[in-house]
Amino acid sequence: MKGKKEIPLAQVYGLLEPGPVVLLTTARASRLNVMPMSWHTMMEFVPPLVGCVVSSQNYTFGILRATGECVINIPTAELAKKIVACGNASGQSVDKFKTFGLTPVAASVVKAPLIAECYANLECKVADRKLVAKYNFFVLEVVKAWIDPRQKRPRTIHHQGEGVFRVSGRTIQLPSPKTSLFTA
Amino acid sequence: MKGKKEIPLAQVYGLLEPGPVVLLTTARASRLNVMPMSWHTMMEFVPPLVGCVVSSQNYTFGILRATGECVINIPTAELAKKIVACGNASGQSVDKFKTFGLTPVAASVVKAPLIAECYANLECKVADRKLVAKYNFFVLEVVKAWIDPRQKRPRTIHHQGEGVFRVSGRTIQLPSPKTSLFTA
Repeated sequence: MKGKKEIPLAQVYGLLEPGPVVLLTTARASRLNVMPMSWHTMMEFVPPLVGCVVSSQNYTFGILRATGECVINIPTAELAKKIVACGNASGQSVDKFKTFGLTPVAASVVKAPLIAECYANLECKVADRKLVAKYNFFVLEVVKAWIDPRQKRPRTIHHQGEGVFRVSGRTIQLPSPKTSLFTA
Repeated sequence: MKGKKEIPLAQVYGLLEPGPVVLLTTARASRLNVMPMSWHTMMEFVPPLVGCVVSSQNYTFGILRATGECVINIPTAELAKKIVACGNASGQSVDKFKTFGLTPVAASVVKAPLIAECYANLECKVADRKLVAKYNFFVLEVVKAWIDPRQKRPRTIHHQGEGVFRVSGRTIQLPSPKTSLFTA
């Protein structure tokens, strides 16, 4: 994709672990959809596994279950209004790409589209459905990862409920001998 | 707990959904432990369900599996150094509460301790173990939730890997008719 570069899959956790709102895209036939999501977590470094909840009441749920593919797109604060708009409309009745001015770009491995306006795009395949029936919880495997290398400190947004977000602020760097802190 | 007030369980998602690093505490007999974690996600609003990965290589894993109880404590940026220190030591050989100057306080429902220095504390019981064997993934139910009402805009920290964190910054509020954005 123009302006984006592929990154090693081992670097994916650093994008998702901080908990940004993401835009999940899907495709069925030629019909594209997008929904905001922040109920997601890393589950493994390599291959990167991501667990996420997609409500069975959402239009996306049926497409994700049927196609087994999606893209996790990570937006920055500039897209906040579009994110909220995407969350308050349904793909059942609206083409959200056209309506809200988002640009779909063909992915390399999956049929779901990348969103050009997002600074990172993770192509995913559903890897485990064991908790789908009970919790609407899908385990995704990231099969290809793209970032915009020009964005050095992307300001992600982090949903606190009811339209309130915190924008990611200053960076702190502490000496830590390990990739993961979570070893104790 | 002194200075803390109980909050309705329906408000828990707003604390965890933004993806903060948390400190997970456990107890076995009189031995307390604490580990940082940021591989967690909300899975349900009420009762609040939280999915999280605790590596089977961690001392905490065996205790969590054996006792079925823990507390998710949410720290602010002031605790960053202690968080990293907790992540780079093992409870097998160190009493991290004493060594790193954290104050355990008795919880009301579970045996694992609350951390006084954290602005929010969520008492949890393990609710589902189906993905523990394959992914070290536990589904927790939050059974009691506490916050420090004096902290109006707690600056949580969000791990990006290798000791780099983003501190939560400015708040943006957008009109949104729904509790959850994730409806599309």
